[in-house]
Amino acid sequence: MGADGAGGVGGAELEAALARLAELRASIDNVDAAVVFLLAERFKFTQQVGHLKADAGLPPADLEREAEQIARLHRLADESGLDPVFAEKLLGFIIAEVIRHHEAIADSR
Amino acid sequence: MGADGAGGVGGAELEAALARLAELRASIDNVDAAVVFLLAERFKFTQQVGHLKADAGLPPADLEREAEQIARLHRLADESGLDPVFAEKLLGFIIAEVIRHHEAIADSR
Repeated sequence: MGADGAGGVGGAELEAALARLAELRASIDNVDAAVVFLLAERFKFTQQVGHLKADAGLPPADLEREAEQIARLHRLADESGLDPVFAEKLLGFIIAEVIRHHEAIADSR
Repeated sequence: MGADGAGGVGGAELEAALARLAELRASIDNVDAAVVFLLAERFKFTQQVGHLKADAGLPPADLEREAEQIARLHRLADESGLDPVFAEKLLGFIIAEVIRHHEAIADSR
């Protein structure tokens, strides 16, 4: 069963699959915790960048820096086996949040 | 200058700000590399989950699991100082990608 395309397994085979699924999910949860703590540190750095830019009168967004980050991320994604298109979308998502933070800092001056 | 709200600094003060900006960006780049490599591992785990689910005839999405992940992420975000709303949006973004992968695996059977 399972490789016959009949759309499911039962009994002991299903039990083994569910046990393996629980193991994989525990590993995914560990990775997610690491990513959350890393991103918390990342936002601490970008908050510092936001204050520094506001103090120095520099604009919140920096297209040249973003282009460098995207190019670097493509290289790292290739190296690590992550889909570069996904990596770029993810960075865009994070940068959009960072720019919102920077604008809020600049607006509060 | 800088704290006077006049919208900018010049000379040595600007130079110091740009040097500090470069330092912070180097730290951000290090965090980003760590996140990319972690997410590459995460997708290896979720690819295994995808194959396992397709073999066992389990559906690609699992709303109960997602609800548990979101609740856990809120706790971790609180603990780490990350904005929980951002953490949840980010997880949603990653899970959407994972489900696309799982559907592609299921469709290829």
